[in-house]
Amino acid sequence: MSHLILARSRNDMRQHLKIWRDQGKKIALVPTMGALHNGHIALIELGKQYADHVVTSIFVNPTQFGPNEDLARYPRQEDEDRAKLCTIGCDLLYAPNLEELYPQGFQTRIELGAITQRLEGVFRPHFFSGVATVVAKLLLQVTPDLAIFGEKDWQQVQVVSTMVKDLDLDVTILTAPTVRDPDGLALSSRNAYLNAEERRLAPKLKSALDKIAHQLKTNPAGLDFIVGQAKQDLLAAGFREIDYLEVCHSLTLEPWQLGDPARILVAAWLGQTRLIDNIGTS
Amino acid sequence: MSHLILARSRNDMRQHLKIWRDQGKKIALVPTMGALHNGHIALIELGKQYADHVVTSIFVNPTQFGPNEDLARYPRQEDEDRAKLCTIGCDLLYAPNLEELYPQGFQTRIELGAITQRLEGVFRPHFFSGVATVVAKLLLQVTPDLAIFGEKDWQQVQVVSTMVKDLDLDVTILTAPTVRDPDGLALSSRNAYLNAEERRLAPKLKSALDKIAHQLKTNPAGLDFIVGQAKQDLLAAGFREIDYLEVCHSLTLEPWQLGDPARILVAAWLGQTRLIDNIGTS
Repeated sequence: MSHLILARSRNDMRQHLKIWRDQGKKIALVPTMGALHNGHIALIELGKQYADHVVTSIFVNPTQFGPNEDLARYPRQEDEDRAKLCTIGCDLLYAPNLEELYPQGFQTRIELGAITQRLEGVFRPHFFSGVATVVAKLLLQVTPDLAIFGEKDWQQVQVVSTMVKDLDLDVTILTAPTVRDPDGLALSSRNAYLNAEERRLAPKLKSALDKIAHQLKTNPAGLDFIVGQAKQDLLAAGFREIDYLEVCHSLTLEPWQLGDPARILVAAWLGQTRLIDNIGTS
Repeated sequence: MSHLILARSRNDMRQHLKIWRDQGKKIALVPTMGALHNGHIALIELGKQYADHVVTSIFVNPTQFGPNEDLARYPRQEDEDRAKLCTIGCDLLYAPNLEELYPQGFQTRIELGAITQRLEGVFRPHFFSGVATVVAKLLLQVTPDLAIFGEKDWQQVQVVSTMVKDLDLDVTILTAPTVRDPDGLALSSRNAYLNAEERRLAPKLKSALDKIAHQLKTNPAGLDFIVGQAKQDLLAAGFREIDYLEVCHSLTLEPWQLGDPARILVAAWLGQTRLIDNIGTS
C-alpha cells in the first residue's frame, strides 16, 4: 500500500510530474474511464515494470459516446478505484473535471481515415474521433514516456498507435493482453450491466472467437462458413444482435486475406449491453 | 552571414536541435512554404529576439491546397531562400520531403470547428484542416519553445492558436505584423503571379480596409453601407471577384458586433490570383 497522489487539474498533475522528471524518472500513463478491474490492474503492473512512476487517468470521456449510448449509466466509482490504485502502487491519479480537458471554446478534433471506418467505426461513428482526441490531449498534458492500453480494445490500440505515429507524438505505446474470467469472458467495466442469465451466456463470445481461430489454423478455406455458423450459434444462444464478427488484418483492420497477420473481432448485444472481444491466432 | 544547417529529415533536424536543447537554448520555429520575402524575414527577426536559435521550415504542404488551387505553380526557389536565411542568420533550415511529414499509411487529420468555417473556410474548405495538421506535425517534430506566424494570415493565426490551446501543445505562439510594400500591398509569395496592371491595382485592397477601419472608428452605424461601397469600388477598379470583405471579431472571426475587438479581412481575385489581407483597428 503506497501513497496515491490525486490531481484534479492539469497544472497540479504537471507540478507533481515535474519533480519526477527532473530526477530523470521514467513515467508511464494508463488512460482509463475508471470502474477499474483486473484488466486495468494488469496495465498498471506493466507500467510499473517499464517505468519508475505510473500515472493512471480516470476520465469518462463524453465525446466518445454517441447520443443513444451508455454515457449516463457508465459505472463511476472513484472511491473504490482509488483504493485499488493505492493497493497496486499507482503513484498518481489524474482525475480531471470536464473543464480541464474541454474548456470553454474547445473546438478541435482529431480524425483518422480507413482504420476508423470499419468494425466499431461503423456502429459508433463518433467513437474513434472522441478517443483519438482525448488520448492526444492526455498524452500532451501528461507527456509520459510510455502509455499503456489493453488489447481488449484492439481496434482502439491500432487507432491510437496510428495517430501517435502520424502526429509524431513522442511516446511509446505498450499493450497488455486481455484479462479474462475463468470461463473466458473478457473483463470489462460494462460486464456490470449483465444480469445473471446474460452473464451465463457472455463467455460464448470467446468460444466463437476460439472456434474461428481454430478454423483459420486448420482450414482457412472454410472460414466464411464457420464465421456464418458462429454468428447463428450466438443468436441461437440468446445474443440479441451481432454488430460484427470478422477476421481482419491485425494492424489495418481490413478484411483478412491469406498471409495477413490475423485478428478475430466481435461486437454483440446481450439485452441492452454491447460486448466486444477479440483474439489473435498465433 | 552565418552558417545555415540544412536538415531534410526529421531525425537529422532533431539531432541538431538536441545539441542546442541540451545547452538549455531556447528555440523558435518559423514555419513557411518558402519563396521567402521580407514578411518572412520579419518573422525570423522576431524569433532571433526571443530565442537563442531560429529554425525555419520550408514545406509546400499539399493538403492545404484544394484540387483547383495553385499547388503546382506555387513558387519554389530554395536556393534563393537558403541565401536569404544565411544572410538573416537563421540557424537551421528544415526542408523535409513529403515522406517525412506524410509517410506511407498516414491517415490522421486535425479539424477545428466554428473558427474554420467562416471567411477562408467557406472558399477553401480543406485549407484549415491541412494547415492545422501540418502545423501540429511541425510543432511536434521540432518541439520549439516559440513558433512565429505572420498576421497577414490572420485567420490562420487564430486557428493555430486555438489548436495549440485545445491540444495542450507546449509552445508559445508569437505573431508579427504584416510587412507591406510602400504602396500598401501586403507582401505575399503569391504577388509573384501578378502582371504589371494587376500589381498596380493590388494596393486598393489595403485602401478598402483603411476606409472601413476609419468608418468603424468614426461611425460604426454606417458600416454596412461603407463595406458594400468598398466592394463595388474594388470590382469597378478591376478586381474580378471578392470572396469576402468583412469586419469580424478579431479572435473568433464571428461577424463583428459593437464592443467586439475588430479585424477587417478581405480576399479578392485579380485575374487568376487570389489575394488576402487584413488590418486591425486600434
